[in-house]
Amino acid sequence: MTTNQRPRAETLIGLAQALLEKAALPPEKASLVAELLVEADLMGHTTHGLNLLAGYLGALDDGKMTATGDVEVIADHGSTLVWDGRYLPGVWLTAKAIDTAVARAESHGLASVSIRKSHHIACLATFLERATRHDMMVLLLSSDPAAASVAPFGGTRPVMTPNPIGIGIPTGGDPILIDVSASITTNGLSGRLAKEGKRFEHPWLLDGAGLATNDPAVLQADPPGSILPIGGLDHGHKGTAIGLWVEVMTQALAGFGRADGADRWGASVFVQVIDPKAFAGRDAFVRQTGWLAEAVTSNPPRPGVEAVRLPGQRGLQKKREALQNGVDLYPGILDSLRAEALKRDVPWPTALG
Amino acid sequence: MTTNQRPRAETLIGLAQALLEKAALPPEKASLVAELLVEADLMGHTTHGLNLLAGYLGALDDGKMTATGDVEVIADHGSTLVWDGRYLPGVWLTAKAIDTAVARAESHGLASVSIRKSHHIACLATFLERATRHDMMVLLLSSDPAAASVAPFGGTRPVMTPNPIGIGIPTGGDPILIDVSASITTNGLSGRLAKEGKRFEHPWLLDGAGLATNDPAVLQADPPGSILPIGGLDHGHKGTAIGLWVEVMTQALAGFGRADGADRWGASVFVQVIDPKAFAGRDAFVRQTGWLAEAVTSNPPRPGVEAVRLPGQRGLQKKREALQNGVDLYPGILDSLRAEALKRDVPWPTALG
Repeated sequence: MTTNQRPRAETLIGLAQALLEKAALPPEKASLVAELLVEADLMGHTTHGLNLLAGYLGALDDGKMTATGDVEVIADHGSTLVWDGRYLPGVWLTAKAIDTAVARAESHGLASVSIRKSHHIACLATFLERATRHDMMVLLLSSDPAAASVAPFGGTRPVMTPNPIGIGIPTGGDPILIDVSASITTNGLSGRLAKEGKRFEHPWLLDGAGLATNDPAVLQADPPGSILPIGGLDHGHKGTAIGLWVEVMTQALAGFGRADGADRWGASVFVQVIDPKAFAGRDAFVRQTGWLAEAVTSNPPRPGVEAVRLPGQRGLQKKREALQNGVDLYPGILDSLRAEALKRDVPWPTALG
Repeated sequence: MTTNQRPRAETLIGLAQALLEKAALPPEKASLVAELLVEADLMGHTTHGLNLLAGYLGALDDGKMTATGDVEVIADHGSTLVWDGRYLPGVWLTAKAIDTAVARAESHGLASVSIRKSHHIACLATFLERATRHDMMVLLLSSDPAAASVAPFGGTRPVMTPNPIGIGIPTGGDPILIDVSASITTNGLSGRLAKEGKRFEHPWLLDGAGLATNDPAVLQADPPGSILPIGGLDHGHKGTAIGLWVEVMTQALAGFGRADGADRWGASVFVQVIDPKAFAGRDAFVRQTGWLAEAVTSNPPRPGVEAVRLPGQRGLQKKREALQNGVDLYPGILDSLRAEALKRDVPWPTALG
């Protein structure tokens, strides 16, 4: 294989796992984190895949990501659980929370897991099929109480994180996979553009004085700017409301958040899995969601739009293509992995050239 | 009292109740519907209060709103319930669903009620304090499978309703009361402006060909236009995702929706009540939500903005003022009530002039 060929997913997973294990993450956790980071790249979410690995390795090095042990169970009432994640890898914690909620939903109809002090959880879209493949619906919310880049509508002081919302919906065919933040854009994309000296196409941020701008560098200025909530200056009270909901569901239910002054990169997480069998039944459920999926994808597009897509449709298509033809990594990611492999004395896979 | 004084809330509730009872709605239901419609006017949600009464009376007249009897219980698993609302008044059904979910959440930690075939449920904000005053959080979602005015992002054919999202959050002080739709504006406001020959300030709709417009009359054109999802042409994939979630939570869980071809004005409703005691506890919860409320209201406003407000803050303030000084009814509503009173031979309250 030559270097201008796209790498295979399994090669990247193997490399990421080896790097994580070398940074002292036990194999079971390293394997899951590696797999789900690469899954994000497969789906085209290139800011939230292997792009994060160097940061995770650094956090393992300096102990800000916990490598060993399990969660501390704060509460377990059957259908509602609270875990202290002890800053274990958020990707591993989130997958475990969804798998636990799926099992609990089998008997309780609906189950929720709140996680305080998780480490960063990466790409929400990658977790959703863990529920939809069991014909269950999942809601996954995340915020980071140690960071703030989004101001409430009308304000200038950042209070919230972008606050992503992941929702997996079985339809009988491909699931609907929603992964949207309550802000117009994300920290990941802003950071990438700022590093590259680029700007957004539209004024999706405010500078520190509250003036609209397309320059992501304002987030690092003093006083810092902010990312606008969805709806922007026009109707951003709606995005603010949704962002506040995510803050509350993730931090207030878990009992740890901004009021405590978190001291490190991390996440508060809320997972809820719903089994349609506990409502009107699986068949009645997919009858409606299948109809809806068809009504979206068959919708006549407006001028200039090729086709109307369902949330997740493009990600699933990219994943199929990437599994067949190799992964289209964002520029710079392979170099970053190579530097980590050199530094950590992890063998570089021959398939990667 | 002279006619240019504002009417008292209790006078309006009494009149609305008398009109509903004259239209054959039993007293217990009439009383609750009257109270909650007026509550919307108190909070300033003037399209979703007494403005709806004439329509409700007409629906009682022609039997499209069921007047008597109770729900049919489709499923009851303790923490998850499905009701067939038999097109009983949606306001009464929704209040009953929240009260039921609050009681069930006491023992189950979290409880959900799905309602199929509800009649219209009016103003979501008016229901939320039924949960927050018990220190519980509530999520209230609604859609109408018989109507469609919102097209998915990139599309032109209306598939969804505006799909309101109501969220009540206890904070220790005034609750946060969220009531936002997944579209930029609502059917109610579009209908009012169209009737008055007015336009929106911004291009919040598409015409039937998919071109942006501020003219609400396009919703009644052939082919019909559509209301844009939140985010509009800029980032409306986010509003679409949230709108699809509401469609699924309301219709697919209840097992009745667009796939069935609903034949009358109504609603599919989802209620979920969460008791923080089943998670990290009540005190831990309001510690975070109180902090968040303070961080929003003390936020330095951007130029041109007087103060940053919490969702529901203005509505609660308007309600306090209206209870003290009388209700600021939208022009035309009192005339519409007078016409109904004349038609139905219901005595006009002397206090209304």
